[in-house]
Amino acid sequence: MTKWVYSFGDGKAEGEAAMKNLLGGKGANLAEMSNLGLPVPPGFTITTEVCTHFTKAGAYPAALKEQVAAALERVGELAGGSFGDAARPLLVSVRSGARASMPGMMDTVLNLGLNAATAQGLASLTGDGRFAYDSYRRFIQMYSNVVLGVEHALFEEILDGEKEAKGVDLDTDLDEADLKRIASLFKDCVARELGRPFPEDVHEQLWGAIGAVFGSWQSARAKTYRRLHDIPEDWGTAVNVQAMVFGNRGATSATGVAFTRDPGTGEHILYGEFLINAQGEDVVAGIRTPQPISRLVRERQNGKKPSMEEAMPGTYAELKAIGEKLETHYRDMQDVEFTVQEGKLFMLQTRAGKRTAEAALKSAVDMVDEGLITKEEAVGRVDPMALNQLLHPTLDPFAPKELIATGLGASPGAATGEVAFTAEEAERLAADARSVILVRNETSPDDIHGMHAAKGILTARGGMTSHAAVVARGMGRPCVSGAGMLKIDAKAGTMTAGGIKIGRGEVVTIDGTTGEVFKGKVAMRQPELTGDFATLMGWADSIRTLKVRTNADTPADALAARRFGAEGIGLCRTEHMFFEPERIVAVRQMILADAEADRRAALAKLLPMQRVDFVAIFEAMEGLPVTVRLLDPPLHEFLPQKDEDIAEVARAAGGDPAKLRARAIALHESNPMLGHRGCRLGITYPEIYEMQARAILEAALDVEAAGGKPVTLEIMIPLVGFKSELDTLAARIRAVAQAVGMERGKAPSFLVGTMIELPRAALRAAEIAQTAEFFSFGTNDLTQTALGVSRDDAGTFLSEYLKKGLIARDPFVSIDVEGVGELVTIAAERGRKARANIKLGICGEHGGDPDSIRFCHSLGLDYVSCSPFRVPIARLAAAQAALSKMNENA
Amino acid sequence: MTKWVYSFGDGKAEGEAAMKNLLGGKGANLAEMSNLGLPVPPGFTITTEVCTHFTKAGAYPAALKEQVAAALERVGELAGGSFGDAARPLLVSVRSGARASMPGMMDTVLNLGLNAATAQGLASLTGDGRFAYDSYRRFIQMYSNVVLGVEHALFEEILDGEKEAKGVDLDTDLDEADLKRIASLFKDCVARELGRPFPEDVHEQLWGAIGAVFGSWQSARAKTYRRLHDIPEDWGTAVNVQAMVFGNRGATSATGVAFTRDPGTGEHILYGEFLINAQGEDVVAGIRTPQPISRLVRERQNGKKPSMEEAMPGTYAELKAIGEKLETHYRDMQDVEFTVQEGKLFMLQTRAGKRTAEAALKSAVDMVDEGLITKEEAVGRVDPMALNQLLHPTLDPFAPKELIATGLGASPGAATGEVAFTAEEAERLAADARSVILVRNETSPDDIHGMHAAKGILTARGGMTSHAAVVARGMGRPCVSGAGMLKIDAKAGTMTAGGIKIGRGEVVTIDGTTGEVFKGKVAMRQPELTGDFATLMGWADSIRTLKVRTNADTPADALAARRFGAEGIGLCRTEHMFFEPERIVAVRQMILADAEADRRAALAKLLPMQRVDFVAIFEAMEGLPVTVRLLDPPLHEFLPQKDEDIAEVARAAGGDPAKLRARAIALHESNPMLGHRGCRLGITYPEIYEMQARAILEAALDVEAAGGKPVTLEIMIPLVGFKSELDTLAARIRAVAQAVGMERGKAPSFLVGTMIELPRAALRAAEIAQTAEFFSFGTNDLTQTALGVSRDDAGTFLSEYLKKGLIARDPFVSIDVEGVGELVTIAAERGRKARANIKLGICGEHGGDPDSIRFCHSLGLDYVSCSPFRVPIARLAAAQAALSKMNENA
Repeated sequence: MTKWVYSFGDGKAEGEAAMKNLLGGKGANLAEMSNLGLPVPPGFTITTEVCTHFTKAGAYPAALKEQVAAALERVGELAGGSFGDAARPLLVSVRSGARASMPGMMDTVLNLGLNAATAQGLASLTGDGRFAYDSYRRFIQMYSNVVLGVEHALFEEILDGEKEAKGVDLDTDLDEADLKRIASLFKDCVARELGRPFPEDVHEQLWGAIGAVFGSWQSARAKTYRRLHDIPEDWGTAVNVQAMVFGNRGATSATGVAFTRDPGTGEHILYGEFLINAQGEDVVAGIRTPQPISRLVRERQNGKKPSMEEAMPGTYAELKAIGEKLETHYRDMQDVEFTVQEGKLFMLQTRAGKRTAEAALKSAVDMVDEGLITKEEAVGRVDPMALNQLLHPTLDPFAPKELIATGLGASPGAATGEVAFTAEEAERLAADARSVILVRNETSPDDIHGMHAAKGILTARGGMTSHAAVVARGMGRPCVSGAGMLKIDAKAGTMTAGGIKIGRGEVVTIDGTTGEVFKGKVAMRQPELTGDFATLMGWADSIRTLKVRTNADTPADALAARRFGAEGIGLCRTEHMFFEPERIVAVRQMILADAEADRRAALAKLLPMQRVDFVAIFEAMEGLPVTVRLLDPPLHEFLPQKDEDIAEVARAAGGDPAKLRARAIALHESNPMLGHRGCRLGITYPEIYEMQARAILEAALDVEAAGGKPVTLEIMIPLVGFKSELDTLAARIRAVAQAVGMERGKAPSFLVGTMIELPRAALRAAEIAQTAEFFSFGTNDLTQTALGVSRDDAGTFLSEYLKKGLIARDPFVSIDVEGVGELVTIAAERGRKARANIKLGICGEHGGDPDSIRFCHSLGLDYVSCSPFRVPIARLAAAQAALSKMNENA
Repeated sequence: MTKWVYSFGDGKAEGEAAMKNLLGGKGANLAEMSNLGLPVPPGFTITTEVCTHFTKAGAYPAALKEQVAAALERVGELAGGSFGDAARPLLVSVRSGARASMPGMMDTVLNLGLNAATAQGLASLTGDGRFAYDSYRRFIQMYSNVVLGVEHALFEEILDGEKEAKGVDLDTDLDEADLKRIASLFKDCVARELGRPFPEDVHEQLWGAIGAVFGSWQSARAKTYRRLHDIPEDWGTAVNVQAMVFGNRGATSATGVAFTRDPGTGEHILYGEFLINAQGEDVVAGIRTPQPISRLVRERQNGKKPSMEEAMPGTYAELKAIGEKLETHYRDMQDVEFTVQEGKLFMLQTRAGKRTAEAALKSAVDMVDEGLITKEEAVGRVDPMALNQLLHPTLDPFAPKELIATGLGASPGAATGEVAFTAEEAERLAADARSVILVRNETSPDDIHGMHAAKGILTARGGMTSHAAVVARGMGRPCVSGAGMLKIDAKAGTMTAGGIKIGRGEVVTIDGTTGEVFKGKVAMRQPELTGDFATLMGWADSIRTLKVRTNADTPADALAARRFGAEGIGLCRTEHMFFEPERIVAVRQMILADAEADRRAALAKLLPMQRVDFVAIFEAMEGLPVTVRLLDPPLHEFLPQKDEDIAEVARAAGGDPAKLRARAIALHESNPMLGHRGCRLGITYPEIYEMQARAILEAALDVEAAGGKPVTLEIMIPLVGFKSELDTLAARIRAVAQAVGMERGKAPSFLVGTMIELPRAALRAAEIAQTAEFFSFGTNDLTQTALGVSRDDAGTFLSEYLKKGLIARDPFVSIDVEGVGELVTIAAERGRKARANIKLGICGEHGGDPDSIRFCHSLGLDYVSCSPFRVPIARLAAAQAALSKMNENA
């Protein structure tokens, strides 16, 4: 006969921690604690298989009732009571417990087993009538709400009415008689609402609660959560039924939660809070403030009331010992719930404790030092994304804040500064050594200098991969993008959100991790990289096989990235350099040229400038590989668009404004993302790519000639869709290389490859790889084209898709494995088939996303490339990807 | 030993027509004619295998010289002369002849075998010294130019100098002595240019010519042509060496070309031209005008000089008999070249004759009637694209024309009218019953009414699938798009091209087939659909398996398409209806609504209008399937963009211009093609799709209730990328259907499906097909996304790609089989696997392109859908696709 029910308590259990799939997380850990001989109130777990059976068949398995009755009997024996017995009533809690904690499911019913008779019995038995009837009225309210679906507010109304009638404010001012009457009023209310009485039969109560837990597995919220988190329907939930213990039985009773280490810092002390003579509910209600558990913490906080270590030294010692035992047993920091009933300690739950990045890091390294876990386990313990907390300033969580708007956390970190509405304003303020937040509807390449000058960037439009977001991440500047409720009036110099108006020069604070915008200055914590960080990253590096490069366009970015451990540049854009003031003039002359000869003349001015840039970048990278992408954006991005700007630019360039305007109009495109850009520019204006190739190759030779390490150079052609494009351009680059080699008397060494960023390129990878010596997956554009979604315009609907659960994650943040991922897989396979040693990497924004990195590792790519501040995240994520692959294989 | 040389002549040949791969087209047909006993001057063919050998090994096969010598010997014997013999000189022509006629290769050298000695011999033998030396100097010039690469102009200079010295104008005024001297000057010139003498050795001449033919197979032009036409490098070319015959030996000699039927009309008469006492060159030089071959044609043309039928009745009869014999033999209309030498007829070439659509149609149907070919063959004989000539007015090829600009032939047919620069202007002029050509930089949905009013559309920007092109094809209006050299100044009311200025109201003529624009009125031929057309289309219909539907948005389009044989509507857009004046106001109210309730109020106004539209369309289609696509374009397309328009629209809609402007700005997108459109609108504004679904479903029930045939209805969701999108919207549509069914007491019957127009949708077809009951491949957008090319912006670079040979065909005209085609194939396979009976069709512009239709047939799609005027083309192309598949399988 199938075993549907697993008992625990009295130093042993039928289950164990390893049976999480069958017993759920809570049930498995209760069993494990029992087996460890820890003081756990007796109880039993109804397995997840019952849930599955119930969902499928619409009824319980035949033998369940009998097994529950037997288990309940045993609980009564151990707890010294009997379920429904008026003289020695056994009360139980009923809780759900799936494999993973899951919102949307029924949580807890306490004090189950009370009715008119057992409440009276409990009063007699404990000699505390107020306690008995307070428990009773709480049970009726909780059960009616959670199990029967009666609105909470109806009970609050009755309670308030009674307090008003009696002229008191607090629940604690109600006495036994009041509470007894209220319990009765509650039952009347339930009968009125449901048309049937509140169940007096304790078994009916129990089965009602069990049914409610199983039913909640099918609730809309739970289903949505499962869909979004890929939790199979058939996992099911377990139900835990456990004898009640009471922390509210006087001065020797208490209730609390504790962490085996400080979850904020990782410090190895018993950390937590407790309340004497209280139940969990009291903490939640906020009527009393809990006290620290350990003396050390109380002293640090200057707490007046005694800690548990001082108030209940014996129980404290017992709890501390249990915590150590659990940590050693589970080999991880534990988060426990406990209750002390009249001096006796009971453990109600244990699970791995949630922690800050700092705590995760310190505890992981400490535990390796303590011999508790291996280095591999330590690496697996730290959430890579949490490293953002270690690398960027964060807002003081305890500081007062006035939230005025919310957008997307587009580039992590916090920043405070005066509001500037134009790049020029930002630059001017910054020149006066003032901190600036640049506020724009959206940014364009024209704003780069202002973004550089600003401490942080805030935009009203754009998503996670909008211009502002991408550039800000590259610069390591905090950025909140797409704060749609912001109304920006740059001319008037104001922004308004929710009735609050902020003028030019007023101070705001942005949190680029959460996407929040606050009025005024908010206190901040500066990041601190400890030795633990270096230790853990060293372990990660020894485990991972995927290389981590960076996207860097300047020597400063390159050096920053190397400090974070970058092993090369995976994407060096050549157009950001074009925006420097002295260069943009030449760039515009080039664009405005009518004939190839004029274009070549303008390009000749740019050549030495580009060469100098590359020399500096190559020197910074000291021989590590550098992938340089030739000009990619459409030319109109380099021309001014507004009439006043056109006049100014024409004046500066000594040209005719009418001609400039005409050219700007001629270059206008309906969909520039799909327009005349990338290698298409190289095909129609070969002289541009020739100049760039020459600058790059000469720079490489210059660095070597000056005694620098030989440059590992990869020249990358963007937006290739047809092999013929790459063939044409690769041939031109090789011709330039030959010419440079003749002039210099030394042939430059380099690879030519391509971005794979169009679906067609992915499909035709076999033939493209005949020419391309490497592929770099440009997953930003590949996502845009494969999904037909413009990242600049996605804000209007993708957020709604996420909210409605149509997609689980923003495909610009985490790679769409099913769609874009299949294209990458196809391209990798076909590319390798055509050229076995082809170098494969990814340089989209996904290169810094742990899930995407896992995908890249599974494909066996050679490297990922991400913005400098993401490099540590990528290193750790790459190590974790390698570990989980090893575990899969093992 | 390999046979490298095949002889022919004297009523037999070593080769035959079936050996085209080995002997080339020309050689195989010369052999075939010989075998038929026709009078062919003797000669031989050097096989294509020699070319391949020569290309690979850089030398001729060992046995070649010997085989050529033997063959040449035999030619001499048959022709009564000997190669290089001064007394009885044998002259030969040397011509290339690949499997298919191929530009870029060496064409012809005539009179080869002449030198000082043989020229003298020829003069003696013929008693015509002038003839001999004229032949000699022509040979030197031709050989030097074609084989030795000496510039033509150098010889012309000498010739002109001699004529000037003698004071004459015409070559015919030069006598034997002049020509002899000129020949000598020519040889001096060659020696000077090349530093070596002109070859006197006739064998050196022959091998020089043969080498030049083989060498020209590797010329850049030939290589480009092969790449663009998928002709393998290893096909090679053959060389034909043939005894010369002369049509310039007096009044009983002549030369000419003839078609066995009139290539313009298909009429079954011997049609062609000839010249008495002439060589082919004389016709080319234009010194004399050739005369018609048949008396009937001469009489029709009021020709003064006698036809061949009258001048040489015997030879004419012989030629006519040979023509009939060849046609019966080849079972197709032949195009022959002939020469009459002193009364004796010689056949120099035969091949299938090029013909107009009218001729192709008539001759194909006639030949079936005559029992010459089968219906299947007849269907295969007519080029589907040529049907455009039958369906649209065409310019009189003989009318004088002044070309002012060239663009893309975006919608076939010709039109003449007064130039209008705005839609309003076009409408106003048309209201006065004047013919208008609407000239715009590019069109937008705002221009639809003007396009309707115009006879033709001309744009300076945009490609084959620009808005102007697509809408014009849908309307059957001729359109020239992307005429980049046009400078349009709409304010001034002028357009300029190449120095010519055309003002508002001046007349121009456009040819939407060729893309040409002419000044003034050009004479036109109106299309005439004969019974032959219906006959051939009937045969095509009986052969094809692919259904042909149409893209139609109005009852008028639907009726027009049905007249052309459409079997349903594959794409009925629901947004074109939104632009009607009375509706656009409600549409704009809907867009400007702040709250869902206001939006619903505006939609409620649109509901009855949309319902009426669908009733009319459903009635027109009488039960044939109709696929209705829900709203697709981004909302900003319905709002005015310019300030003056905004003010006007705000006035009309009774709204606030500032608010309208703000909304227009808010809806602005960087890349609208990849923005908030398609099903994304349905997700964020479900009430829009609900209104549309209701209008469609109610219309279907209305039609049936009024006694019409039950509607075969397919509701199509555009731009699906995720199954969740389709699930959400399909559920809403089914809910609307249920509501409508309850209200009407009858459940509407319909399918719900999706466009597959995003790469992700193609890849995820298996899961999408779980919900979608049909797929319609939107290959326009699929091409845009798979290739990352915006069709509106492609003009700037795709034309250059075509010109440079980077791509063979515009991927918006003919489906990119390798890229987009693989996505379609993947989607079809995965879709069918998930839902065996899934209906598959294509509704992009490719649905009317024969090559794309062949691809669709090979995939086994159920139907293609194209604009009404393309329907006959698609029917014929579908039949041909079926035939070629049958032939492949057989």
